[in-house]
Parts: sequence; structure tokens; C-alpha cells
Amino acid sequence: MTIHSGRHFLQIPGPTNVPEQVLRAIAAPAIDHRGPEFAALTRRLLEALKPVFGTGGPIVIYPASGTGAWEAALVNTLSPGDRVLCFETGHFATLWREMAQGLGLDAECLPGDWRHGVDPAAVADVLGADRAHTVKAVCVVHNETSTGVTSRVPDIRRAIDEAAHPALLLVDTVSSLGSLDYRHDEWGVDVTVAGSQKGLMLPPGLSFNAVSDKALRASRTARLSASYWDWAPVIAANESGFFPHTPATNLLYGLEEALRMLHAEGLPAVFARHARHARATRAAVRAWGLEVLCADEREYSGSLTAVRTPPGVDADAVRQTVLERFDMSLGAGLGRLAGRVFRIGHLGHFNDLTLAGTLAGVQMGLQLSGVAADPRGLNAALDVLRSA
Amino acid sequence: MTIHSGRHFLQIPGPTNVPEQVLRAIAAPAIDHRGPEFAALTRRLLEALKPVFGTGGPIVIYPASGTGAWEAALVNTLSPGDRVLCFETGHFATLWREMAQGLGLDAECLPGDWRHGVDPAAVADVLGADRAHTVKAVCVVHNETSTGVTSRVPDIRRAIDEAAHPALLLVDTVSSLGSLDYRHDEWGVDVTVAGSQKGLMLPPGLSFNAVSDKALRASRTARLSASYWDWAPVIAANESGFFPHTPATNLLYGLEEALRMLHAEGLPAVFARHARHARATRAAVRAWGLEVLCADEREYSGSLTAVRTPPGVDADAVRQTVLERFDMSLGAGLGRLAGRVFRIGHLGHFNDLTLAGTLAGVQMGLQLSGVAADPRGLNAALDVLRSA
Amino acid sequence: MTIHSGRHFLQIPGPTNVPEQVLRAIAAPAIDHRGPEFAALTRRLLEALKPVFGTGGPIVIYPASGTGAWEAALVNTLSPGDRVLCFETGHFATLWREMAQGLGLDAECLPGDWRHGVDPAAVADVLGADRAHTVKAVCVVHNETSTGVTSRVPDIRRAIDEAAHPALLLVDTVSSLGSLDYRHDEWGVDVTVAGSQKGLMLPPGLSFNAVSDKALRASRTARLSASYWDWAPVIAANESGFFPHTPATNLLYGLEEALRMLHAEGLPAVFARHARHARATRAAVRAWGLEVLCADEREYSGSLTAVRTPPGVDADAVRQTVLERFDMSLGAGLGRLAGRVFRIGHLGHFNDLTLAGTLAGVQMGLQLSGVAADPRGLNAALDVLRSA
Amino acid sequence: MTIHSGRHFLQIPGPTNVPEQVLRAIAAPAIDHRGPEFAALTRRLLEALKPVFGTGGPIVIYPASGTGAWEAALVNTLSPGDRVLCFETGHFATLWREMAQGLGLDAECLPGDWRHGVDPAAVADVLGADRAHTVKAVCVVHNETSTGVTSRVPDIRRAIDEAAHPALLLVDTVSSLGSLDYRHDEWGVDVTVAGSQKGLMLPPGLSFNAVSDKALRASRTARLSASYWDWAPVIAANESGFFPHTPATNLLYGLEEALRMLHAEGLPAVFARHARHARATRAAVRAWGLEVLCADEREYSGSLTAVRTPPGVDADAVRQTVLERFDMSLGAGLGRLAGRVFRIGHLGHFNDLTLAGTLAGVQMGLQLSGVAADPRGLNAALDVLRSA
Repeated sequence: MTIHSGRHFLQIPGPTNVPEQVLRAIAAPAIDHRGPEFAALTRRLLEALKPVFGTGGPIVIYPASGTGAWEAALVNTLSPGDRVLCFETGHFATLWREMAQGLGLDAECLPGDWRHGVDPAAVADVLGADRAHTVKAVCVVHNETSTGVTSRVPDIRRAIDEAAHPALLLVDTVSSLGSLDYRHDEWGVDVTVAGSQKGLMLPPGLSFNAVSDKALRASRTARLSASYWDWAPVIAANESGFFPHTPATNLLYGLEEALRMLHAEGLPAVFARHARHARATRAAVRAWGLEVLCADEREYSGSLTAVRTPPGVDADAVRQTVLERFDMSLGAGLGRLAGRVFRIGHLGHFNDLTLAGTLAGVQMGLQLSGVAADPRGLNAALDVLRSA
Repeated sequence: MTIHSGRHFLQIPGPTNVPEQVLRAIAAPAIDHRGPEFAALTRRLLEALKPVFGTGGPIVIYPASGTGAWEAALVNTLSPGDRVLCFETGHFATLWREMAQGLGLDAECLPGDWRHGVDPAAVADVLGADRAHTVKAVCVVHNETSTGVTSRVPDIRRAIDEAAHPALLLVDTVSSLGSLDYRHDEWGVDVTVAGSQKGLMLPPGLSFNAVSDKALRASRTARLSASYWDWAPVIAANESGFFPHTPATNLLYGLEEALRMLHAEGLPAVFARHARHARATRAAVRAWGLEVLCADEREYSGSLTAVRTPPGVDADAVRQTVLERFDMSLGAGLGRLAGRVFRIGHLGHFNDLTLAGTLAGVQMGLQLSGVAADPRGLNAALDVLRSA
Repeated sequence: MTIHSGRHFLQIPGPTNVPEQVLRAIAAPAIDHRGPEFAALTRRLLEALKPVFGTGGPIVIYPASGTGAWEAALVNTLSPGDRVLCFETGHFATLWREMAQGLGLDAECLPGDWRHGVDPAAVADVLGADRAHTVKAVCVVHNETSTGVTSRVPDIRRAIDEAAHPALLLVDTVSSLGSLDYRHDEWGVDVTVAGSQKGLMLPPGLSFNAVSDKALRASRTARLSASYWDWAPVIAANESGFFPHTPATNLLYGLEEALRMLHAEGLPAVFARHARHARATRAAVRAWGLEVLCADEREYSGSLTAVRTPPGVDADAVRQTVLERFDMSLGAGLGRLAGRVFRIGHLGHFNDLTLAGTLAGVQMGLQLSGVAADPRGLNAALDVLRSA
Repeated sequence: MTIHSGRHFLQIPGPTNVPEQVLRAIAAPAIDHRGPEFAALTRRLLEALKPVFGTGGPIVIYPASGTGAWEAALVNTLSPGDRVLCFETGHFATLWREMAQGLGLDAECLPGDWRHGVDPAAVADVLGADRAHTVKAVCVVHNETSTGVTSRVPDIRRAIDEAAHPALLLVDTVSSLGSLDYRHDEWGVDVTVAGSQKGLMLPPGLSFNAVSDKALRASRTARLSASYWDWAPVIAANESGFFPHTPATNLLYGLEEALRMLHAEGLPAVFARHARHARATRAAVRAWGLEVLCADEREYSGSLTAVRTPPGVDADAVRQTVLERFDMSLGAGLGRLAGRVFRIGHLGHFNDLTLAGTLAGVQMGLQLSGVAADPRGLNAALDVLRSA
């Protein structure tokens, strides 16, 4: 095995490069999760999380992966057989729908081409036709990690409102929170699902639900089995700074440091940085002569870019070359995109020169794989980065 | 607030003092959880875990607290309405039963006085009478963290076998695994539930199920909703070193280091160390003129000791004094024991002099709280520690 | 080899137990030692160090061990053949005098019994008789690490002043700074020598000179070769936050954290804590029936206690037993005290229960070595600790 | 102040980017520097260092900066007034000569243009003419950190040998050791001077002397004052794994990890990597239309490249732009090169994509500073990196 020198480029769209400050923070000794020091930590965390979610309401932290927070959003608000509206925007949207079905929900899925986000007009159609209000929830993935396409949540909200439909709006922000502008309250989201390992710059192991009043009310009558995911005991215990189950103390230390960093940079600056890096990446992709998977410019993701390889070029072979030769991990095409796209993560703890190194690795990897990627691609990205 | 110098004594019965080597291990950079380096880690972990559980079968690792692993044991093996046999051996046994009920199981609970473990004879009675085999599972907490009482699992197994009863045996080892001798296969346990934050010397955030063939078979027909907890996709993905959901990478790094340490010391030596520290602690308690909560010497816990305070002495006030004056956290009395016992954790990354410091703090705290604890208590413990 | 569990008790009188916060701080990435971020760090450090030395004057930080700072004090202020007055108060005072001789100084040494500090009357005698002012410097070890005896620097200063003698006063505070009250300016010290690895709670690798105006003036005409140790370029470069040579960046990170901790606890509280722990230790020693090496109660060290073993008992054998059985390092008898004393360090990042564990280890180690140490020794220490 | 996201690019030619493994290693708790665990560490270190220096002889480790190791090389081998031959190859060679003069040596300096290394013919001339063997030492900087020019040590050795001159050969490898091929024994070097913070991938704070038999013999009669730097007590104490002074324990932990990494990659692979990165860098510089400072292709440095800015362009302004806009530190022009060159460090823990990011930052910085750097520069570097 080749021994690589230097720092690995972890440019999958998450888990992302964890800042060394955060890593050092999680290496602090465990403390009593029922003591006053811990209670003070919990309170600081819940406060500092609010602007990131854009909410003044409760945020529930789970010691779990993002998948768990998906489940939490469903089981806290819904009952067996409830109809939920899903959208085939990509791999993760599909998995969430499959989970909903597995939990005994009637999960309807509007088809999609994996190159567009949720179509607000389609939402309007379905809900407008649902006079009986049989649809109990609309499940949207804000930023599809498998495609690099974002869905326009405010427009979806508007569609729901215009249909005067009472369905809950559940939104997965696993790969957008802390990277893309997001406003739980303002956009009228009922449950926001998030994870620690992307824009929040932590290792995986924590996930989140932000919860609206309406979702809270729904949770009182929901009959799916919540158990581990039950919001009520968490929210109650959080009042005094504690958790009903043993929290993942050390990841919470990291969360505090990561939030400190996000707020020091300033959320608007963080969002602008991600958008700028995405723009530079797309400039490179196009100058290489390749195609960005996302087909609607209103829906470009700020946190990752999925790139289509030319016909006959196995995207996984490109990724393998990049890994072996340049010690960089890129995201694979998932599901129906397997072998046909690779994904460049440009989110989290990231900067211009790391992006330049990333794109240099992609450019060389493409060329080594027989793709005649125009070498001006990298410079096209630098043109974006150089201009303020 | 007083600023304390020196290292906090975290002598609750878990989370325990995490070794600095483990803390440094979890501070390593995140890697691609779908890459070859991660796959190799998974394989090493699953191998090194086997002797700790005493099993050659599958071990499922969750990014979750121990509560999650409780739920996993139930939902993977049982169906709504199934009758399960629980035992009121303490606070956590009670919580587990409540969870079972919440999940829609018919959780019967044999009463107990919180000073004894599960009575094998009672198991024999219930199962012997259950000719229809309506009991589907027997739920035992191996080491009750709230009482410092262990249940004799091999004797319980024998009782089940003598009744020739097919019920599954589910055992919670959250505060015993890695501290007390435990043998999943040899003792015929079907699901072993464990967590990371006690004898495994990690921060909280990981939990485990070890699974027998019989439990695996049961999981194929179980109808409770498993979803996040579903063994099958984890076991399948583990084959190639991966996980279906994003694993808690950095805690897994820590797990590898902790397992390396346990195996370097040698599991028999680890168990003997815990037993010896428990013996020294009980010697101190008695010499102080106080009473150990555990009433059966066959059931003394090696990982913690619950101590009854004399009538009129609030155990929480003692704990508060110890925390403020000596910067040591002790475990509170839980549930019906609130205010009447405190618990001394002597498990995990621990040694003779840290135990001596711990017991010195307890002795001084008792005296400052008005308990006439005989100062020879500490020396009684040292007598145990001094003798090889 | 026995694998020990738990945390090693590093109870030598330095290097001391480094706080985990400091260890994490030194694990931060290296930065450009000529950049603005580094300059700001230097300025913060030099400011925060001042109250620890008790000076408003320059403090020179060396990437070097304490031995280097000894040399710096001499070579910056003296010229070949200069007469300096030393005192045989212990091993380190002897080594410092030997260094002075090796550097070409005429180092006169007043004899001592290694159980007392410097006798101010003797200083007065020598300096009073030195009408020609041939003595250029008086070299005092504030806290003799080999004996646990402190010298009364203010009284020595008074003796020099009463003799109206212009000799410089050079004081080694390697094992006292940050543990014992010390006042460079108020006590009229000319050069204070210090190291990082004791009361400053850092790993070894940094050392210090605090410098009076008079010493600075002397440095302008001193003719010993200063080179690496030359104050002038350091003080000049420090003006803009830099160093003439490459500084030990990461230890400086640790220094900032350690200083933050010392100031958070408050220096008077830090000094009181050390004095109290020393008092508790002496109470144990006496109750064991052993003798503290320091023979004058005005000169007891707050940072360590040297204990005489009974005739016929090899102190090193006791230490070896303690190390093997209880994983605790104690200090050896040095020089003429080899085998006859062991030294207990109770300085730096330390607290009551760690002291209790330490003394428990010493008590058991003595008993295992055949010394009939009265078991009430430990309780005598606890009596001190228990009383506020 | 702008808050930068992502990892700082520390591309000065040292201190270099410390691997996170090394940082975590130095965060391990301090141990007794007189105990068996430490002794074993010392022995492992001294063994693992040998192939890096290319020596079977003694290597002396100092808790000090590289400046200290310069001094050590001189004071251990020379006597006041000794004639030493120096070469004006750059800033650090000049500083070393000034140190020699300050120590009382007769340091003669052959002039140079800061674009070439030591001329072996000039060495031959001076030594050939020195029939009386008044020259006692020849001081060569292997890799001039201020210019990116290496001197050809084997050719210099040959020149000395051909003159049959007994002068010692002292070589500074501060910025070459662990990055460029180096052979203390084979090349007949008498003292090799090194530091921790460049190719050894550690933070600053350790420095080294590798010592030939001839140098050792010279040290027995040398009359400069060695004191702190004296080899003899270090070599003697190292025999049993210890040091005469308190060693910088935690940096030594890091050294062990760094050496493990170097040996895992393999020294020939390490050297080839550095040479390749230097080649790629020079390709970029030329394609930008700029000039590499080093004027002789036999003397290109593998660890850094100094780049001349066009007339009228202040190199420091370029560096400032790069720092502010792209969070990258570059090396300044030193001494007579101030403002006229900047230096790119490409040594230590480094890889292709980090180099690409580095060169992207330089390219953009130049363009933002008004230099019409051809954008094909970066691609010229990638051409080198892409070819195996």
C-alpha cells in the first residue's frame, strides 16, 4: 500500500473535514451528564443552535446518525397508515420514503429525474386535489446529497399555503444546515432534520430535529412508536439542562466549538463562502467540458457539486484514480447514478486553496482517466476565487 | 464558583474516566466511511469485540446511547403484544420494562426489593407454569447500575433450560461489559445489550447488541418496527466493513484504542481488578459503619457500590458536599432510592490510588455531612489493596 | 511487564501532571512565528507572566530546559573570574555552582547540611566582609527540589541591603514559581530563573529569566559568552512580538492555557492550596513516624516534601515498590541523599483527592517495604484536608 | 479581522505543517524523565534517528531551537581564536558566521551572491593554501533556507580530502534533514546540525547534533565554553536512556511518531517526493514568467523555492495579499533579499494537492498584486504532478 504524506483531502459531501479545534474539543474528558457543568453546556448549545436552524422553538439533539433524525421526524408526528408525500429527487429522498413505508406510513412518491428539486407546482397540484386532507406530511430533502440539487423550500411552503392544506412540512437539511441559508421559522417548516457531520463540521454521531408548535401538537396524538426518538422527554429534560438518555458528551463539546466558529465567521459569510465555492466549482466543471448534474440554476447546491462523466467513462474509476494517486476521497454516484457521476464536496471547514487543491486533483484524475478535461478548468475556478 | 485544580474525580458509575489515549484517538480526523481504510477498521473492531462479549456471533454497533440498544434488542426480536418477563431489580430494569410496554409488549414484572438480583427460582416458576410458551423473552439487567447488584445469568439460563422454555434471554450489560466476566455464547444469552461509556472506557455515543443464532432467527418474524435498529442491514453491510447509516467514526477510533488497552491488560486481569476494587470499597463502607445496598454476597457488583446513608442523612447532600469540596462526582440514588443511597463507581480506567483518593473523598464528605464515619474505613480498603 | 490501568500518579516534584487542557492546547497546529497571530500571542504571554513572577520588567522565554536558564542568568550578567556566592543547600544548588565554575566564574560555596535554606546571617557576614565588592552575584535556590527546603529570599535581600553590597541577587525558582508566593520586584531579585515543567504545569522545554534593571545594566558589560542566551536580542524582538530564534510555538500555546488556569484560580488561592497540601503531607509523614527532611519550619516547601526513610530502609526500594505496585512515580534522593530520602511532589495541577491517593500509595509502599508506618498517617492528612 | 475558514496553508519553509498524528502524540501526558518508560523511549528514538542522519554514531538531542545546535557544533569542537571557514551563501550562513565571531572564533567568510551554494573549488583553494592547517573547521549550510540553494556536501568533502586538510566539516541541515538525501557518515561530515520543525515535521523546540569520531576527539580539547551544549554528559547519560538535563518529553513523543511516519513512507520515497514537488514548483514559476532564485540546477533545493518578483513588485506586498486573501503564509525575503523574493516551502508533511492549492494561491496572489503571471503556470506544475 502506498503511504501518503500530507493531509487527506476528504472531499466527499460529508462527513466533512473536521476542524482541528473541534477535534481537540471532543478530546476533553467526559463529565457527569447529570451535573451542573453539563447542564450549563446544554443550555449554551441550545441557544447557539437557534440561529443556525433559524428557529426560536425547541431543537432536539439525538446521539444518533442523521437516519435516526429522519425516523424521529416521522414517528413523533404521524400515525400508522398516514399518507405522506415524498419526491424522488435523489437517493436520500428515496431512502427516506422507504423508511416511511417501512414504518407503516402510506408514502406516496412523486417521480423525478434526479436533476431537479421538488416542483412546487406539483405540490400545489397534489395538495390542492387532496380536499380530504389525507396527506399528513410533505417530506422534502432541502439539499440532495446524492445530486447536488436543492429544493426551494419557501416556494414549497407557499404551494402548501396556497392550497390551504394542513399537512406538516418535514425538511431534511442534513447536507445544507450550516452551509446554506435556512430558516425553519420563517419558512414555516414543521420538522427540520439535521446531522452533525456536514456543515456543522463535527464527526458523525449527533442528529437533530427542530420542531414547530404545530409539529409539537401533532406529536401529542401521533401513534407511531417514538420511544428512543420521543421529543417530549427530551424537551422536558432539556428545561433543566439534561437529557433523558445518556448524551454523547464529547460530541457536544465539539458542537459548542463548531458553533463558536460558525458564529465567529458569521452565518451570512458562511453561506456566501459556500455559494462562491460552488460557483467556482461549476466554472471548472464547464471549462473542463463536463456537465453539472443539477439542471436548474435556481437549484444549484452550495455544498456539493455532482459531475456527470462522459459516456463510457466510469465515474468510480475516476474516483479510484484520484484516491490512489492524490489521496482525495470524492463522493460516488449513488443508486441510479452509480458510475455515472462523482460528487465534489465543498462544504464545512473549507477555503479557497483547499478548493483549488481539490479541483486540481479532479482535473488530473480526469485526465489520467482518459477524459480530455481542458486544463483551463482549474483556472476558470481560480478566476471566480480571485475576484472578491 | 470555586475553580478546582487537578483532575476531576468522575466516580459516578458511568460515564467513566476516559483514558487519555482513547480521547486522543477520537481526535483523529474523520475519514470516508465508505472507503477502504474505514472498512479495515470495522473488521478489526468486530474481531476485537468478540472476546469482550464472549461471542463468535454478530455484534451490531449503533451510533446511539445504551437506551437505543435496549430498544434494538426488543424490536428486532418481538412482535406487538408479545409477553416478556421483567424483574424489578432496580431503576434501569424498571425503565427497560417501561420501554417494552411503550413499544406495545406485554411486559410482566416480577417485584423486587432493589437489593437482590433476579431470582433464578422465580424464573423457573414462571416459565415452568408457562406451558403455552406465551413468554417470548426474559429481560435481565446483568449489573444494575442503580443498585450495584448483579444478577446471576448462568443460573437464570439454567432455570430457563430446566423449564425447557423457548423464551429468548435478553441481557443488559451496560455497566458490566468490560468490567465483569461475561460470556454471551457460553451462558446462552440471545441478545446482549451494551454501551460504550462504562467498562469500555469510551465517551457515550455508541451502543451494542450481540446476537445469537436464535435471536437472528426470531428477528426474521418479529413485527415490531425496527427501522433504525434493524440488525439485518447492519450485519449485511458489516460483511464488507461498512454500515448502512453513517457510523460515529471518531468514537469507533476510540473503541479500537480502548479494546487494545483491555486486551493488553488481559480480560481476566481486568475482571480481577474490578472485583478487588469492589472488595476494597465494601471493606471501607463497613468499617465506616455503613451498609452496602446489595444484600446477597453472591451478587456484589464489581463495577459500582451503592451505599446506604444512615436514617436522616440525605445522600444527595453528601454528594453535593463531596462535589463542592473535593471535586468528585458520585452517583445519586435513583427512583425509590433517591436521597437514601449514593453510588461509587469503581469501573473502567481505574487503579488503586484513584480508588484510595475516591474513598478518601467519600470518607471526608460523610464526616463533613455529620456522619460519624470511622476513619479506619479508608485503611480497611488499603488493607485489601495492599495485599496482592 | 504489568499493564497498569488508570492514570499514572506522577508525583515526582516535576515534571508535574500536565492538565489535559494544556496538553490539548499544545496540540494546536504550528503557526508562522513571524506572522501577526504569533505576535499577538507573544504579547499576551508576556503580560500574563508578569504577575506570576511579580515583576513589571522584562521576562525572557527560552526554548530550553531550566538548566539553560541557569546559564542565561550567569552569562548575561557576569565576566570570567567574577566571584559569585553560592550555598550548599542541596543537589541543584550544587549543580548550579558547578555550572558557574565551569563557565569560568570563581564560585564560592558556603557549606550546608541539605536540611536548611540559605542562612541570611551568613550572607550578611560574607558580604559585610567584602569591602572591595569582589562578590558580583549571590546565587540562591528559592525552593530546593532535592530537599523540599525553601530559602527566605526577602531575608537574604535584607542581608545584602544591610551590607550595602552591590552584588546581584540571582534566584532559581524552578520548583517554586507558580506554586509558592514569589515577588521578583518587591524582593529585589535581579534575575529569576524558572522552568515550565513544575508549577507552570507545562511539559518541559521552556525556561525563563525575569530581569531587573540592574541586571540589564550589568548585561551590557558582562563578558561571558551569552550567544544563544543573550537577553538583548530577545527583549528587542519581543517588542514587536517576535523572537530572534525560532520559538517553541506549541509549548507557548500550552503556556497561555496554563497561565489562564492559574489566573482563573487566582495566584493567592494557588499558593494557599500548595501550602495546605504540604501541611497535610507533613502531618501524614509525622503520623507515620517518619521525619521530614526540612529542619526549619520557616523553610518548609509548599511544592514538595522530602521524607527520610528509617535507617536500614533503602528509599529507592520503597520507590520501586510504589512504582510497580501502585503505578506512582516518586522523586529519588539525589546526591548525598541517594537512598536515604524519597520526595513527594504535591505541586502543579493537583487536588485533595489526588493527594489522598498519593499518600495512600506512599503509606502502602512503606508498609510493603517493611516500614511500620502507622496507618493513621493518611487520616492525619485527611484531617488537614477536611478542615476548610 | 477576517475570520478564515478551513485550514491555514503554512507554506513558509518551516516551521512546517505538523501532522495531526504528531500533534496528538505530543499531547500525551508527561512521564518521569528518570523512569524506565522514558529510558526505553530514548533508546528507540536514538535508533530511529540514525538512518535519517545517515550515521551510526552518536546523535545529541537538545531542548533548544536550531540556533542552539549551531552553537553546540562550534563550542564542542573549537577553541577561542580558532580559524573557521564560512561561506556567504545566504542569510542563515551569515548568521552562523556571526555567531562564530561572537563566540570568539576567527570566522573567515568567502563571499557569495546568494544564488549559489558553496563552491568546492574555493574550498580547495583556501584549504590547499592553508599549509599550516590554521583552519579548524569548514561551516556549510546544506540547504539555505533563505535562498532555496543546496550546497554539494560530497564535493566539498572531496575538496577537503584532496587538500589533505584536517579541518572539521560542520554542516547545517536544519531545512534539509528528513527532506533531502543526507549521509553524515558516508559524506564524512563531522557535525551535522538539525532542528525539529522542518522535514522532521515537529513543532520547533528540539535540535540535534550528529557527531563523528573525529569531532568527538576534537571535543576533548576544545576550549570554548560548552556547558548546556556539552556533548559528553548527554552521550554518557543516553547510554542508560536518560539526559543530564530535563528533556522536552512531549516533543520527544512527537519525534517518535514523526520518525515512524518517515520510515513508513520510506526515506527514498520521502526524498523523491520532495524533489518532485520542487520540480513542479519550478515549472510553475517559469511558466508564470518569473525567475527561481537558485542559479545552478545542480543546487536546486527540494524543500523550498525562492522566487524573484519582477522589478518594482514588492514581494512582501504579494505575501501580504496571499495571507489576507487566501490564508497562506509564505516565507519573506531575508537580509539582502528583503522585498525581492518570496519563498515557497514544500517540505515536511505535504502532498500533491496541497502543493496545487499552494501554487494556486501564489498564482492568484501574484495576479492580484499586478504581476501578469501566466495562468498556465499552475497547469505546468500539474503536468509534473500528473506524470508518475
